[in-house]
Amino acid sequence: MVCELISVGTELLLGNIVNTNTQFLAEKCALLGLSMYHQVTVGDNRERLTQVIRTALDRSDIVILTGGLGPTEDDLTKEVCAEVMGFSLAEDPHTRQMIESYFKNNIYKEIPDNNWKQAIVPQGAIVLDNHNGTAPGLILEKDNKTAILLPGPPNELIPLFNEQVYPYLEKLRPEVIRSQMVKVCGIGESQVEDKLLDLIDSQTNPTIATYAKTGEVHLRITASAATTEEADSMIKPVVKEIKKRLGDAVYSTKENESLEMAVVRLLKKNGLTVTTAESCTGGMLAARLVNVPGVSDVYREGYITYSNKAKRRLLDVNKSTLKKYGAVSEQTAREMAIGGVFANGADVCVATTGIAGPDGGTEEKPVGLVYISCYLKDKVTVERFQFKGNREKIREQTVVKALDLLRRSILKNY
Amino acid sequence: MVCELISVGTELLLGNIVNTNTQFLAEKCALLGLSMYHQVTVGDNRERLTQVIRTALDRSDIVILTGGLGPTEDDLTKEVCAEVMGFSLAEDPHTRQMIESYFKNNIYKEIPDNNWKQAIVPQGAIVLDNHNGTAPGLILEKDNKTAILLPGPPNELIPLFNEQVYPYLEKLRPEVIRSQMVKVCGIGESQVEDKLLDLIDSQTNPTIATYAKTGEVHLRITASAATTEEADSMIKPVVKEIKKRLGDAVYSTKENESLEMAVVRLLKKNGLTVTTAESCTGGMLAARLVNVPGVSDVYREGYITYSNKAKRRLLDVNKSTLKKYGAVSEQTAREMAIGGVFANGADVCVATTGIAGPDGGTEEKPVGLVYISCYLKDKVTVERFQFKGNREKIREQTVVKALDLLRRSILKNY
Repeated sequence: MVCELISVGTELLLGNIVNTNTQFLAEKCALLGLSMYHQVTVGDNRERLTQVIRTALDRSDIVILTGGLGPTEDDLTKEVCAEVMGFSLAEDPHTRQMIESYFKNNIYKEIPDNNWKQAIVPQGAIVLDNHNGTAPGLILEKDNKTAILLPGPPNELIPLFNEQVYPYLEKLRPEVIRSQMVKVCGIGESQVEDKLLDLIDSQTNPTIATYAKTGEVHLRITASAATTEEADSMIKPVVKEIKKRLGDAVYSTKENESLEMAVVRLLKKNGLTVTTAESCTGGMLAARLVNVPGVSDVYREGYITYSNKAKRRLLDVNKSTLKKYGAVSEQTAREMAIGGVFANGADVCVATTGIAGPDGGTEEKPVGLVYISCYLKDKVTVERFQFKGNREKIREQTVVKALDLLRRSILKNY
Repeated sequence: MVCELISVGTELLLGNIVNTNTQFLAEKCALLGLSMYHQVTVGDNRERLTQVIRTALDRSDIVILTGGLGPTEDDLTKEVCAEVMGFSLAEDPHTRQMIESYFKNNIYKEIPDNNWKQAIVPQGAIVLDNHNGTAPGLILEKDNKTAILLPGPPNELIPLFNEQVYPYLEKLRPEVIRSQMVKVCGIGESQVEDKLLDLIDSQTNPTIATYAKTGEVHLRITASAATTEEADSMIKPVVKEIKKRLGDAVYSTKENESLEMAVVRLLKKNGLTVTTAESCTGGMLAARLVNVPGVSDVYREGYITYSNKAKRRLLDVNKSTLKKYGAVSEQTAREMAIGGVFANGADVCVATTGIAGPDGGTEEKPVGLVYISCYLKDKVTVERFQFKGNREKIREQTVVKALDLLRRSILKNY
């Protein structure tokens, strides 16, 4: 079966945003074993949208449209798609109720008149409830063709797709497709591929796909077979071999487990509490840890010590250390980690200090120089990095390496 | 003039990578005043590539193709495009020399045989030297249609485009295009559109485009005219009218100024220092502030007080307040903001406390309930929100509203 993606939105044509939805949907479709030959982006223009939808329905079995479901007059996806496929539009009482409760639960006191437009749906369409916005998802089926309409904002699209569209598409597949993630941190994509070269080269079924993320590499092993059991038994030895070759660099084999979730799991397992002492990351490290539900068992407080004074007062870093070695140094990083633990009695402390730029770099200490430290069991490990990229990118990489240092420190000691 | 983008590559269709080239090129084309109605992604398949190029040349004046210029047999962009446009192929001695010197300057000792394929170019095409790879860029002109072929890797494409393609396209423009951003926070997209409905409806030149971000709305006003001065003078009254109607909700009219940058600018202007006391956001608010270069003038330290104990110890929140009203309450938020200021002597403190979920909600205090407070000039303002979405989304919205409360508090008092 052939699937095609259509992204609707002037902001994409103008280059205001990167189209991450297409990557998300394409990856999911590949996972489902759907072929994909075309991805198209078009604006909120009736004539062109009509043409693009016609062409897509002509050459593909399933067309997934994203965007253009908003409340404004510009938003045309639903209207045009219904017209092309011959559906009439009518208000859906259930969707009207969903919109009402969405506004009731949010800050807006009055519902703008134009939002009621979103309660109008093609008659006979499958309506998918959107719990994160006011535009419902829609599935239109006719003459062996399927159009799936989804809202553009990723925080609405992703849960809607995962919870309602993925199971729908799964039922259309001829074979069972199973896949397993192997998530890697601490080594680069080319190193991973070097170590797995023969496995990747000889792949047919299962296949191995690699995805590079900031500071991480994700591997997806996918098998298709007649039954779930058969597919799973084809994947198992490949995952085992990958884990053998990559060792501790593998932090998770769970689809939805992020690096910070793996770290929190390890902390919980070993009954450890952690604190953070951040200079250049300025709260970003703590923010990632705190995004893990239930983190309160292992994380209670943290410090953002951006100034030298704060490093001294909150973390008891020596005045002479700051004077002799500077705020961005191995010595300061070391004292920050020790100070964090002593300040609140946590078992572990991770600390960061670096030059995120764009200013503040020198020949000796250039922009991108970062020290990350971890205190655990009376021992401090300090690592030095020289990152590339802009301020945000340097800070993001620092956070990934800090989480990974914490992870490896626990693995080494427990 | 209408421009169309075609991305060629199976890795895009499989969702292995995000298509950042399209965003880069689309933004540049918008800046050049070129209209863009279609962006298409297609794989390395002769038949489909032929069809996509034909359609694009039919409906657009300029077609920019990226990818598929590599040395392997899969790479077909150049061959197919030359065939569709009626160009014959021949080896270009200059390009052959460029490839030789590229390999000489890099680590490779031998040049793989298939790389010579990249020295073959359509006869009559403009050849653009690629200093970061072996595939040259190509411009094919025929019958008032232009095809521009560029290598896919961003580190080759971006310098090649900026240095050689942008100046080429600039010369084709009939008019000057200028645009101005108006960035809005605190009111939703449909409310903004309600207030500007007559302006948006009557727009022709300048045009007004709206973009929704998390907690923000961005408006782009674009005018085309014979001269820069004329275009600017068309934009000015529209911006003035928008600012008049939206008032303090407009936080910036600068293209590259984010909400946190506007907040830091306001703090600097008024000689104020700020600190943060975060519970549910867990460092995310501080992380956004610290992403502003030069933030050290106004931000020195902050606290992540996730546990009640941390709220008491670091921010001096009363035990009785926590017991009587709970950690997520107006009273606790108020005491957190006061405590932050008293802990380090900053002029302002913003504090957050809420239930980010997925657990911890009750009927009285459901998931998404958040209190945000701001202490300034001996006065504390506390705002209550009921957000929707997952844990991350609730925290992100909290951060935007916290930055906006800080911004509005300064505006009100100075």
